[in-house]
Amino acid sequence: MTASYHIIGNYLSPYVRKVLVVLETKGLAYTIDPIAPFVGNDRFGELSPLRRIPVLVEGDRVLNDSSVICQYLEERHPQPALYPADLWQRAQARWLEEYADSYLGDVVIWGMFYQKGVKRFLFGEATNDAVVQRARDEQMPIALDYLESQLPADGFLFGEFGIADIAIGSFFRNVAFVRYAVDAARWPKTAAYVERVLARPAFTRLAAFEEPMLRTPIAEQRAVLAGLGAPLAAETLGTNVARRGLMRLE
Amino acid sequence: MTASYHIIGNYLSPYVRKVLVVLETKGLAYTIDPIAPFVGNDRFGELSPLRRIPVLVEGDRVLNDSSVICQYLEERHPQPALYPADLWQRAQARWLEEYADSYLGDVVIWGMFYQKGVKRFLFGEATNDAVVQRARDEQMPIALDYLESQLPADGFLFGEFGIADIAIGSFFRNVAFVRYAVDAARWPKTAAYVERVLARPAFTRLAAFEEPMLRTPIAEQRAVLAGLGAPLAAETLGTNVARRGLMRLE
Repeated sequence: MTASYHIIGNYLSPYVRKVLVVLETKGLAYTIDPIAPFVGNDRFGELSPLRRIPVLVEGDRVLNDSSVICQYLEERHPQPALYPADLWQRAQARWLEEYADSYLGDVVIWGMFYQKGVKRFLFGEATNDAVVQRARDEQMPIALDYLESQLPADGFLFGEFGIADIAIGSFFRNVAFVRYAVDAARWPKTAAYVERVLARPAFTRLAAFEEPMLRTPIAEQRAVLAGLGAPLAAETLGTNVARRGLMRLE
Repeated sequence: MTASYHIIGNYLSPYVRKVLVVLETKGLAYTIDPIAPFVGNDRFGELSPLRRIPVLVEGDRVLNDSSVICQYLEERHPQPALYPADLWQRAQARWLEEYADSYLGDVVIWGMFYQKGVKRFLFGEATNDAVVQRARDEQMPIALDYLESQLPADGFLFGEFGIADIAIGSFFRNVAFVRYAVDAARWPKTAAYVERVLARPAFTRLAAFEEPMLRTPIAEQRAVLAGLGAPLAAETLGTNVARRGLMRLE
């Protein structure tokens, strides 16, 4: 199978996950360079002006930003459609994607995952408990209240499984990584919806690569992923594990 | 003339400006509630979950996020087209819009305009000179180097005047507000391009409302705008000028 697309990004990033779920759902072949979060050599900096992941490479062409990449893949490969046909619903789906990328990104990634995972295990720094507590007790309930008002009791946001579900689900995978469980008594629709979305085949296929990454040192990750049959690219831009400026997980 | 669209937002916000330039260029009728930056009453918080401007209201329907709004307007009113027809170019245009919203947003709005304008005049707080200096001497040159490598020597980014030009131009209007001039000797293509973009009729029509806002106290802004013929809505969600949590200018 010839891979048309190459992704630079890590399986633990929700922004990368969005793109991978789109590729998987559309049945598109791809390779991945699973560079460690927040690192990347000079060549990576040239390909990604904001030093963010994911980056999509198609031949000698490069495209940045997870939302832009997902939209491009939809336009290049319209079936199965992941954006609603109705213009107003399509706009609302994009808004919910933006809400996930933006607010859930702040709370889940910077308030939780970065503090409890990346900072401790990648940089050997202490977790800032006040930041984590604020994310868990103040900011996350705001997001859950909002989502509870938007999400359907059954099925997906706009009929078929699509980009808004993919974006929201991608962030809730990282919520699970830090062992935060949505209180189903307080937010019943959201708790059931998240479970439904993450049970989709595209999410479960990726979960097989995500779980081991949570407990594998960076230097051994590629070998472990190869053993699991991940579509690894030969070249990597993430060998330089020295911290080279903060790279946002998007 | 019946206004189909209503915009909640301020003439000084680059994110609002993007949407207004799209409306102006497509010749669409609209009204505006020019609420002061960073304020807005409880009703505003209900319409804008992230307390950001602009918000688009169409009848009883509400849409958030400047990029999502612009894309929606393009799909509803395809002519004149503001997004490239070629899929790859269209993706690159969206990426440059995201780059402007994100990096130029950080540098121009938070590093410059907020510090030198909003903070001083709206909140009566002192400018943080170290933040301004870093934005001007370190962060802005990075953006200008990148833009100089991307921008055309003549004309616009993807042939016709479009969304990437609108996004970049919108931020450079705020660059002008803080009296930063792009060094034409060091970044000749960028300096000429910005001038070309801001000379477009949609930008100059809005400039007539922007200039007076820079020197008018908030309490008098609506009266001044009315005198200038701005398409003001009768209702306003920004009467509560007490600071109610930070509202991002997007």
